[in-house]
Amino acid sequence: LSIVLGPNQYGKAEVHVVRVTRNNGFHAIRDLNVSIALSGDMAAVHLTGDNAAVLPTDTQKNTVFAFAKKHGIASPEEFGLLLARHFVDSQDHIGHARVAIEEASWDRIAAESTHSFVRNGRETRTALVHHGADGTSVVSGLSDLVVLNSADSEFHGFRTDEYTTLKETHDRVLATAVNAQWRHSRDTDWDRSYGEVRRLLLEAFADTYSLSLQQTLYAMGGRVLEKHDDICEVRLSLPNKHHFEVDLEPFGLTNDNEVFYAADKPYGLIEGSVRRDDAPDDERAWG
Amino acid sequence: LSIVLGPNQYGKAEVHVVRVTRNNGFHAIRDLNVSIALSGDMAAVHLTGDNAAVLPTDTQKNTVFAFAKKHGIASPEEFGLLLARHFVDSQDHIGHARVAIEEASWDRIAAESTHSFVRNGRETRTALVHHGADGTSVVSGLSDLVVLNSADSEFHGFRTDEYTTLKETHDRVLATAVNAQWRHSRDTDWDRSYGEVRRLLLEAFADTYSLSLQQTLYAMGGRVLEKHDDICEVRLSLPNKHHFEVDLEPFGLTNDNEVFYAADKPYGLIEGSVRRDDAPDDERAWG
Amino acid sequence: LSIVLGPNQYGKAEVHVVRVTRNNGFHAIRDLNVSIALSGDMAAVHLTGDNAAVLPTDTQKNTVFAFAKKHGIASPEEFGLLLARHFVDSQDHIGHARVAIEEASWDRIAAESTHSFVRNGRETRTALVHHGADGTSVVSGLSDLVVLNSADSEFHGFRTDEYTTLKETHDRVLATAVNAQWRHSRDTDWDRSYGEVRRLLLEAFADTYSLSLQQTLYAMGGRVLEKHDDICEVRLSLPNKHHFEVDLEPFGLTNDNEVFYAADKPYGLIEGSVRRDDAPDDERAWG
Amino acid sequence: LSIVLGPNQYGKAEVHVVRVTRNNGFHAIRDLNVSIALSGDMAAVHLTGDNAAVLPTDTQKNTVFAFAKKHGIASPEEFGLLLARHFVDSQDHIGHARVAIEEASWDRIAAESTHSFVRNGRETRTALVHHGADGTSVVSGLSDLVVLNSADSEFHGFRTDEYTTLKETHDRVLATAVNAQWRHSRDTDWDRSYGEVRRLLLEAFADTYSLSLQQTLYAMGGRVLEKHDDICEVRLSLPNKHHFEVDLEPFGLTNDNEVFYAADKPYGLIEGSVRRDDAPDDERAWG
Repeated sequence: LSIVLGPNQYGKAEVHVVRVTRNNGFHAIRDLNVSIALSGDMAAVHLTGDNAAVLPTDTQKNTVFAFAKKHGIASPEEFGLLLARHFVDSQDHIGHARVAIEEASWDRIAAESTHSFVRNGRETRTALVHHGADGTSVVSGLSDLVVLNSADSEFHGFRTDEYTTLKETHDRVLATAVNAQWRHSRDTDWDRSYGEVRRLLLEAFADTYSLSLQQTLYAMGGRVLEKHDDICEVRLSLPNKHHFEVDLEPFGLTNDNEVFYAADKPYGLIEGSVRRDDAPDDERAWG
Repeated sequence: LSIVLGPNQYGKAEVHVVRVTRNNGFHAIRDLNVSIALSGDMAAVHLTGDNAAVLPTDTQKNTVFAFAKKHGIASPEEFGLLLARHFVDSQDHIGHARVAIEEASWDRIAAESTHSFVRNGRETRTALVHHGADGTSVVSGLSDLVVLNSADSEFHGFRTDEYTTLKETHDRVLATAVNAQWRHSRDTDWDRSYGEVRRLLLEAFADTYSLSLQQTLYAMGGRVLEKHDDICEVRLSLPNKHHFEVDLEPFGLTNDNEVFYAADKPYGLIEGSVRRDDAPDDERAWG
Repeated sequence: LSIVLGPNQYGKAEVHVVRVTRNNGFHAIRDLNVSIALSGDMAAVHLTGDNAAVLPTDTQKNTVFAFAKKHGIASPEEFGLLLARHFVDSQDHIGHARVAIEEASWDRIAAESTHSFVRNGRETRTALVHHGADGTSVVSGLSDLVVLNSADSEFHGFRTDEYTTLKETHDRVLATAVNAQWRHSRDTDWDRSYGEVRRLLLEAFADTYSLSLQQTLYAMGGRVLEKHDDICEVRLSLPNKHHFEVDLEPFGLTNDNEVFYAADKPYGLIEGSVRRDDAPDDERAWG
Repeated sequence: LSIVLGPNQYGKAEVHVVRVTRNNGFHAIRDLNVSIALSGDMAAVHLTGDNAAVLPTDTQKNTVFAFAKKHGIASPEEFGLLLARHFVDSQDHIGHARVAIEEASWDRIAAESTHSFVRNGRETRTALVHHGADGTSVVSGLSDLVVLNSADSEFHGFRTDEYTTLKETHDRVLATAVNAQWRHSRDTDWDRSYGEVRRLLLEAFADTYSLSLQQTLYAMGGRVLEKHDDICEVRLSLPNKHHFEVDLEPFGLTNDNEVFYAADKPYGLIEGSVRRDDAPDDERAWG
């Protein structure tokens, strides 16, 4: 019997840091939830509890706060890179760092507000950084951007079997919560890039006359790649937020795609990647 | 031993209805989560299981969908009133109806989008309608409108006892998730009123130089009452979303209100009502 | 225009305290989430931000921890009473205290474990204490005790209207998440009482041949009152966790109450009180 | 510019099926939440919206219910295998199926209850099945099994840097929510195996004198492998649910590991795999 230690990592998760910067009385804030995972030569602590190679997760938390002060937070991607490099560079035993960040965005309450903000709950911006001797990767993303088309969506011509009861439709509501990640092949202006990708995803969703959610998915990913040559792959996970047309006939009413029951579960889930054919493989970048 | 039935109600909760209206190809949507509770002469069903007075909750659900078609959804308040009146008027055994509605709001993806929407996750709009022989009440509200002031907040001069360790501060971040409800003394243009109250709450939060969250609460409620004479009482529940200034001294850094740890729990919770002194009591309207 | 301050309270919410006691190497733990709300003469802080009457919520948090050490945690009810009395007795400006507690329960991992525990996720135990010049009340409770009867439940003979499509059934699954609170008219052995009431609620749910969930609710509340003369009222909120019999006919299969789709939303919600006819009114005790 | 479709899958997620079986009036229930994801030759639907290869997710949902009737639910693993094989075998275009199942477990309300159950909220049992031309894998698991040791845990001798402020401790509370998955190298008696692995994980957690959570993780995984030669790898994700000893000195009290503040976030997160050295790699089995 030979039992061995397999892949492992450890770190501090969900360090919620808010950074305020002041410029002549004009404030700005960044609001990040940072999760760090370090890996390397960690056999001893697993096998015997020898912590000599273990930088405490508490220290990792402190580092987030100290770096927010020393370096500021230019963007989640930048901040993730700073942290990942720091741990790998400063710790012999650490060969690789993964930093995952969620950002909540805030708007000024009024255009002229200098220090008053309201959280903009539209979606969560994400960044996932990997860094080690084996290279560096940056994946940007967003989650829970909920969108709906009340026209230009059909679903028919599908395959059937003995368990198929679904009727074909030539006019349905198409709604989803966009969860998207995109991998960069080089550094960019991260904030600007994020805003543009977000806009492209929304535009492609709105523009695409959809015969299936898969077609919309491909159109969304493709649109981003067409416009951003620094992005080599887009992965999308799109729950089909079913809006069922309610049968109103029993009540002597017609329902011409006007009244829907919005169901939470179960839901279709469409997942796919759109990529350049020459994009180098880097499965680790996504996980 | 004499055991009796006390207050009771029953109904269908969380009926998620989405209503699309089309005007020359220009679509609009309303997205409501409707909860109905009916009460009246319901002793028999509790004591013996005799359902003769019980309109099924399934029927209540159907009614939500049918009414969305027949009457449209002008506003959550209006829709709640329609439903509440329907059940009380059409059912002998029902003396009172409570309809609670949450609304998710959607923006057009682009200004010119005719049928493409993105959910605006800023806050949840709420409406609570009571209707019965004993009168009608409408309470509008919102939940989870998250706001933050990075200046103009202090906290000092407070009472202390043997368990007090808190330091006074003359400059802190003040953040909260506004949960507000306001009771109307007469009907109004519900959508317009909602937008204005929301704006006033935000403005009062931003404007108020705050010596305590209670002071801000009172200012927010008061601002609404000053501008809306059709509103007789505002109730606010404001969690103090603590942003703790991180001690960076151990790392040789100063922290001049720049880096904060945003804690979830525990949190202060400040709750209060601001009202006109001649507002008629109607505790039931709020529950 | 005369705007005034209405009812208000403030305090620290969700203080998660875990208390370990050791008895000759045999450990025991109590795991409470404590929320405190104080009220009294608080006009100044609302109107002018004068905090002279405000004991910080941070102090309230400290008090929870200090009391856990000094007094131990005999039960959530007892601990809530200690805290509530402390704040009212020691603070001139505080006339009333509300302490709400949730308890998570833990089992020993093995019968003989002295210091190893596994959380028992069955339900959350609750206690709600009010104390002030106007008296003291204790309401015990539990939430999210999920139960299901796969026989002995019917639903028919109900009222119908033009929106009714529901079919009658003489055999259905009845499932609910029991949320119950019960008001004590005098002190008792709180832990023992909790265990017995929990058992009675379960037994009554299981024993009752149910023609409607209301009938089951009344039977559950009644069972508790019959056996516990120190309890004067039971309030129950029972979501009808619908288990819909799936139509398998299209697949050439019968479904004799064997395969169900368990829907989350919408759900029926049945709420009611069962009480002694001589129970003194005390609406505040429940809120 | 050449943009191509990358890996993709689609299916119905979170189909909540409850199956009742009756044996001479003695009922049993299984309560599963089933998520299906199919993949194969799906270029057409992504590129042109041609659904000819797309078996609707609605059909997949129907299949879950029909199979629950036809085949019963012997275990989540068995049911997952049945479904996965069905889709791959019956659909030309589908080369691979992934079925993920969560099971909620129920106890009889009383030992002699024939048809009355109470949900046992201890943990969620999981099963993850992959099946395709490229083979079949079964990973069993559990999530959110919350455990705590109030003795026999230390943490010291760790690495430090300029951001380290943590004190060493020789007596701390160790608590975690066990998330575990284990990969089978052959079929087994799934229910019995689950019960045994669960017990071994608990015992190893309780037995291990812990110098770090990593050491406990390795002991837990190793214990399972020692006793189950049909299991070739165990993966664990263990959040360190920090219980901070509260400083009571300001109140003139000592705290000898008796009173803890249980923090939710941030938390340490320890993740690792324990495996046989001859376990064949199959990364896909876990995702």
